[in-house]
Amino acid sequence: MHFTSESGPDGVAQRRFTVDGVPGVLWLPEGSEPGGLPLVLLAHGGGQHKTARGVVERARRCVTRYGCAAVALDAPGHGERKRSAQDERFATEIGELLAAGRPISAWVTRHTAALAERAVPEWRAVLDALEAAGEGFGPVGYWGLSLGSVVGIPLVAAERRIAAAVFGLTGRTAPTEEAGRVGVPLRFLLQWDDELVPREAALALFGELGSREKTLHANSGGHTAVPDSELASSERFLCRHLRSGAGS
Amino acid sequence: MHFTSESGPDGVAQRRFTVDGVPGVLWLPEGSEPGGLPLVLLAHGGGQHKTARGVVERARRCVTRYGCAAVALDAPGHGERKRSAQDERFATEIGELLAAGRPISAWVTRHTAALAERAVPEWRAVLDALEAAGEGFGPVGYWGLSLGSVVGIPLVAAERRIAAAVFGLTGRTAPTEEAGRVGVPLRFLLQWDDELVPREAALALFGELGSREKTLHANSGGHTAVPDSELASSERFLCRHLRSGAGS
Repeated sequence: MHFTSESGPDGVAQRRFTVDGVPGVLWLPEGSEPGGLPLVLLAHGGGQHKTARGVVERARRCVTRYGCAAVALDAPGHGERKRSAQDERFATEIGELLAAGRPISAWVTRHTAALAERAVPEWRAVLDALEAAGEGFGPVGYWGLSLGSVVGIPLVAAERRIAAAVFGLTGRTAPTEEAGRVGVPLRFLLQWDDELVPREAALALFGELGSREKTLHANSGGHTAVPDSELASSERFLCRHLRSGAGS
Repeated sequence: MHFTSESGPDGVAQRRFTVDGVPGVLWLPEGSEPGGLPLVLLAHGGGQHKTARGVVERARRCVTRYGCAAVALDAPGHGERKRSAQDERFATEIGELLAAGRPISAWVTRHTAALAERAVPEWRAVLDALEAAGEGFGPVGYWGLSLGSVVGIPLVAAERRIAAAVFGLTGRTAPTEEAGRVGVPLRFLLQWDDELVPREAALALFGELGSREKTLHANSGGHTAVPDSELASSERFLCRHLRSGAGS
């Protein structure tokens, strides 16, 4: 694990790294070491990447408002990563479907599920590498919507180091045991008029999540119209939960 | 409109009044006059009353945390009010149904709809009386769950003086135009495992509410298990909305 360090204008240090060829970024309060800090795993949505504007702004808020660290990775086929033949085929096919005005949700579901199978072990390897590098963190939380939840639900189901989560903008697509194995406190965001995720599928997925402490927040509007206040509230929920030591 | 004044230990003045025979309570910061203060209409749930513990605690938080005034009334057949023959019949019948282990939701629906028809003009008369008494308030909000929403939805649909609302713990029972005529920013609370309100009916009602700015918050648990943090958050939403002047 090799870090390069950068600093922003607001007291947030940004360190780039790679783990097994997966590029990532770690954000920390400038001049501090991560020892004991709560850590937020920030996943991006489909077509975005680890330093997309929304991801970077969220990471900086986690640091400056809540004193947490944050880490983001490029998902398979995203950002700096090479696209596989499968990724290229998907991009071509989805373009053709969109051009023909045909529904894309079945394609998205199939592709993102395959992508999640690759992404889950990558996140676990990064947690291992951070520990091995002596960057001992406090409680770990996961924040990811849409593709970020398709990856995050099996990750949180499998990974005992994650103590709280924010999910949303995705739905139940097939019978799965993974949602039921999620047991951590969580917030789930739903867009009432989501053009990509059927409302019933999203509600069914929320119902299947195994956590005793879970809250659904639904707002009017489409897939990309989550209100800023709702995003800010989800960050506060996650960071305060980690800060309160509930995850330790 | 005749007030009697009482003061609590925490700087909150509590004034009892009656309007057209309906008894109510007004809470204010001690020593202040209501002029310009945001006003929260606090409705109680079925079987409760204007000074039930939850109502009084909520009123005091509206005053002490947010500098709002709050007012509560006894709903028809509740609290200090005489029960009508219809109220008595309902109480008897619901007891018999419960004793027989039979479903009560149809009875509850029928009774609360009739009760709302009586309660809506009472709330409007109290707003008129407060204005006529020279108690000019700032923006007005409505907070009411369960029975409080059965009353509140037609009230907010009809009453232009109300600028924001908290509803929940009720569902769509029959086609109605009232929900669609609600246009104010609102928060809607739903209990995922509500034993009195079918989930689909609550979701359908939320979908029908005409407000552009509306948010559903759903938590695990039954009808009476709304988390304290969710109740506190709903008070914050309502009072901050009124305070921000969005309702003026």
